[in-house]
Amino acid sequence: MDYQAILNEIAAEVEPLLEKGKVADYIPALASVEKKQFAMSITLFNGMQYSVGVADTLFSIQSISKVFSFTLALKFYSKDLYKRVGREPSGNPFNSLVQLEYERGKPRNPFINAGAIVVADALINHYGNKETAFEEVQKFIQEVSCNNSIASNPVVAASEMEHGHRNLALANLMKSFGNLDNEVQDVVETYFKLCALEMSTKTLSRSMLYLANHGIDPLCAKQFISPNQAKRINAVMLTCGHYDASGDFAFHVGLPGKSGVGGGIVALIPKVMGIAVFSPGLNAQGNSLVGTKALELFTTKTGLSIF
Amino acid sequence: MDYQAILNEIAAEVEPLLEKGKVADYIPALASVEKKQFAMSITLFNGMQYSVGVADTLFSIQSISKVFSFTLALKFYSKDLYKRVGREPSGNPFNSLVQLEYERGKPRNPFINAGAIVVADALINHYGNKETAFEEVQKFIQEVSCNNSIASNPVVAASEMEHGHRNLALANLMKSFGNLDNEVQDVVETYFKLCALEMSTKTLSRSMLYLANHGIDPLCAKQFISPNQAKRINAVMLTCGHYDASGDFAFHVGLPGKSGVGGGIVALIPKVMGIAVFSPGLNAQGNSLVGTKALELFTTKTGLSIF
Amino acid sequence: MDYQAILNEIAAEVEPLLEKGKVADYIPALASVEKKQFAMSITLFNGMQYSVGVADTLFSIQSISKVFSFTLALKFYSKDLYKRVGREPSGNPFNSLVQLEYERGKPRNPFINAGAIVVADALINHYGNKETAFEEVQKFIQEVSCNNSIASNPVVAASEMEHGHRNLALANLMKSFGNLDNEVQDVVETYFKLCALEMSTKTLSRSMLYLANHGIDPLCAKQFISPNQAKRINAVMLTCGHYDASGDFAFHVGLPGKSGVGGGIVALIPKVMGIAVFSPGLNAQGNSLVGTKALELFTTKTGLSIF
Amino acid sequence: MDYQAILNEIAAEVEPLLEKGKVADYIPALASVEKKQFAMSITLFNGMQYSVGVADTLFSIQSISKVFSFTLALKFYSKDLYKRVGREPSGNPFNSLVQLEYERGKPRNPFINAGAIVVADALINHYGNKETAFEEVQKFIQEVSCNNSIASNPVVAASEMEHGHRNLALANLMKSFGNLDNEVQDVVETYFKLCALEMSTKTLSRSMLYLANHGIDPLCAKQFISPNQAKRINAVMLTCGHYDASGDFAFHVGLPGKSGVGGGIVALIPKVMGIAVFSPGLNAQGNSLVGTKALELFTTKTGLSIF
Repeated sequence: MDYQAILNEIAAEVEPLLEKGKVADYIPALASVEKKQFAMSITLFNGMQYSVGVADTLFSIQSISKVFSFTLALKFYSKDLYKRVGREPSGNPFNSLVQLEYERGKPRNPFINAGAIVVADALINHYGNKETAFEEVQKFIQEVSCNNSIASNPVVAASEMEHGHRNLALANLMKSFGNLDNEVQDVVETYFKLCALEMSTKTLSRSMLYLANHGIDPLCAKQFISPNQAKRINAVMLTCGHYDASGDFAFHVGLPGKSGVGGGIVALIPKVMGIAVFSPGLNAQGNSLVGTKALELFTTKTGLSIF
Repeated sequence: MDYQAILNEIAAEVEPLLEKGKVADYIPALASVEKKQFAMSITLFNGMQYSVGVADTLFSIQSISKVFSFTLALKFYSKDLYKRVGREPSGNPFNSLVQLEYERGKPRNPFINAGAIVVADALINHYGNKETAFEEVQKFIQEVSCNNSIASNPVVAASEMEHGHRNLALANLMKSFGNLDNEVQDVVETYFKLCALEMSTKTLSRSMLYLANHGIDPLCAKQFISPNQAKRINAVMLTCGHYDASGDFAFHVGLPGKSGVGGGIVALIPKVMGIAVFSPGLNAQGNSLVGTKALELFTTKTGLSIF
Repeated sequence: MDYQAILNEIAAEVEPLLEKGKVADYIPALASVEKKQFAMSITLFNGMQYSVGVADTLFSIQSISKVFSFTLALKFYSKDLYKRVGREPSGNPFNSLVQLEYERGKPRNPFINAGAIVVADALINHYGNKETAFEEVQKFIQEVSCNNSIASNPVVAASEMEHGHRNLALANLMKSFGNLDNEVQDVVETYFKLCALEMSTKTLSRSMLYLANHGIDPLCAKQFISPNQAKRINAVMLTCGHYDASGDFAFHVGLPGKSGVGGGIVALIPKVMGIAVFSPGLNAQGNSLVGTKALELFTTKTGLSIF
Repeated sequence: MDYQAILNEIAAEVEPLLEKGKVADYIPALASVEKKQFAMSITLFNGMQYSVGVADTLFSIQSISKVFSFTLALKFYSKDLYKRVGREPSGNPFNSLVQLEYERGKPRNPFINAGAIVVADALINHYGNKETAFEEVQKFIQEVSCNNSIASNPVVAASEMEHGHRNLALANLMKSFGNLDNEVQDVVETYFKLCALEMSTKTLSRSMLYLANHGIDPLCAKQFISPNQAKRINAVMLTCGHYDASGDFAFHVGLPGKSGVGGGIVALIPKVMGIAVFSPGLNAQGNSLVGTKALELFTTKTGLSIF
């Protein structure tokens, strides 16, 4: 298949849509991002990489970081993790407190904010302190991406913290239900530092290979997690990866994926490739508008889909 | 692969679990079903069929009928159908009115009761009256199953109607929001007649081939729906097929599927086969306890999964 | 105190507001009511009656009928009634199903629709059939109003039934939780016949005397209910009489009262008088806009208040 | 009326109930309070005071403090206060986040925790800083109680803060909706210091006179607020003073009142007296079990009620 030609076609087709959508504006650091940007990259199991657009541009990965934290928490805690966080779609806007209250502080899944905060808490427990927890997740991301320069943007992290009252509300609520072991401030700070990591579509598409290949990096043959764990992370990405538009994403794209409000989306085709797109204009559900469309075009044009 | 050996192994492994679970008891006709039953069948694209257990025993397909009604409604209305019913997981117990009220009478997806009632209403509109609507869905099921004797159990249907106050509440609520065109009584009656259809795991596994093969029956080469529609039905089955345990099913089984309170579950492996299991003991979420376990064992033993 | 002068003043002051508000339009029979009408009547314990405006005009009492049904149900069932219906404010729009579902079919109080439907069911149980139940409530209202001609408007009742899907949803939901003994259709029909009773502000203000006087009609000395029951009905009127604007009504008016979407409101000053107002334009909460204002002016001008 | 005899009778009648209920145990400082205590005091407009039980014992007034903060906030902001906090019953357990989220950060009334936190924020705005805000509310309470020694217990306040994650969740949620001007920590700290004020039933019953007498202290003739404001505070106490048992309290006691988890309840009979009871065992709704019973007995025995 001529992947480069397909990516070029997609870039041309989504061009008129770059006007649309709305850049995340809840913090200044994100609000100032230029909207009319687009990038898409795929990485195959043999290491071949195809890209179009600003594929080296770094952007805030935001909620995509939840995939990596979840991977490590699952690795360390295995099934015990599910005592603290579920794996069901949330069926509610992404940071709703309602369901969290009715379910007594246990978040529905690790890909909504509350769930990722619990995961961060579990990782701080495992590593002993917040600094190590952050560094180890960062190191893991560097490893699965084959890129040692991945770093968190301190301005973004600080800005998130300053405007993070809703996440502090979630964390305090979980703390009141006994589902948070560490200090609220420390956990939320760690969560925000992970959200503020910056990557390009090139490195992000590379980082998905271990999940596309049942837990084993196909290029360096390193096993990060068990095949079962990898498949199950993929299942959670498919059912819960896009907040309250997860069904829609499965419906239109049909691949396991995870989006972030920074405009990035990662996805993967099991046994075939890792994929990443970037375009900062968001749709009403808070997912990249052009990114979602590009992925839909990609599965249509290639005929690749899990269904 | 020696499918027969695998099915035999599964039957042996689930045997001790047949004591567990709870038969649906909201109507006498279902409550009297013997709990300790098990059957599993698979049908390949070449027509080969493998079974274990009581694979010819007829049971009430209940919510599995929603897959077939949805197929026809999607065929006739295409995207317009989504003006009346969504495709997002519900994130709530299966017949909750809460979300329906907050979302002003538009059900989250066609696989929760409210959604299937809207689908029945759309089919009555299309066919002109409730009798024809029921007969045409029945005829469609007979066709995709290659079995002309499939019929609805009138005792079960009447009993459902008599105890169906919650579904009547859902239907009246949607009617009050203007999302039901026909008389509440007629629509709910049609819905219940479809739920009361009786099939075996053999015919059910056969009936999934058109969805496993992108809309085309691989044995008679008849195209029922477009490839895109088939893939999208599969996506909805994966994200919404098991009420509030859909995430869990995706997590453990990793296949598009749909369960019914009669104890049946259908599933499919795209491009490979149709599958059906039956065991009437239900777990806390209202899905066949042993059926779910058998499917999990099947994907583990065969290594077949969409992820 | 010169009550007539005060009523005249109030009529003059509310005149400019008669343009405002919105007549209930969910059924044609109510939608066709002329908006710019106003009437107010008070009846003292000595039988003296003062009125202003169209005080002999009959209008649909709608939810005001709930006061009378509740009185009889409390008389017959005493504390047992509270096993089926609570006495807490609902804190939600008036016919919300959400709270009813979370509280497993037990309505919060007898003055929301669900609560009045349960009360109607209890009265049908007591009297043996729906016809007698309706007739006995009607007879009771005639008796406390000293007016034998009070009757239900069959056109309004039939029209309510035809558009009553939300109430049928509430009733079916309660039936599914086992909190309705009679047929859904019969109970809702009885409820609607009671809502369709027609009265004037003159008779309505007269009808409140038994509640203002601790259960005993001060004019004919007949005891309808015990002093304790009367005080408790007043308490429920104060905390729950105006749907989700009950707090607001207590805040502005400071009297036990009950409103109906027909534009009527009854109120009472314990030990002093019965009051009724009528003006069909409703505010956002579904209570008579001018009626509420007139009652606020009345308590301000007379200095009468329970606080 | 022989008030002393009535109080003695009540004390004897509630004696067997002192075993019941459950002392608030969410912080150690409250959990260690001896359960089998009872006190009741009334203060008449002529200054006469009648008491029974441990009427000089100081206890944590907790949510009773909300009455005083609300009084001052209403005095300073008048109707503008209602832009930030409503006056409707909450219809939900007392610190539920659900309603707060659906109503976009505007608490239902000033007597639920969220509402009192907003009131504290408004007072910090008015006085310029948290220290002055606390001191001025304290000074106001000392003035209406004629008791200069009323003080906050720093151990209780610190302990509340340490276990106050649910209140921090509420405050952060409101902050995220823009309904909190000051730092979350400062506002919640001020709120907890007010809750930790300690008073006896003697001083509490004295402190209600300004509300019983339309805003004017009947003993020193000082006007604290307008008659209208006083009546409206009474209305809010009646409809919202006891969390989700407000309807029940109005039903059984029939007086404006406010309870605290420390076991105290204040109430008042307009134009007649101030009342306070204390008994630390709480009922399921978090109100003093014996205190509520004592007030019900008091209105029954004296025949005093607003209805």
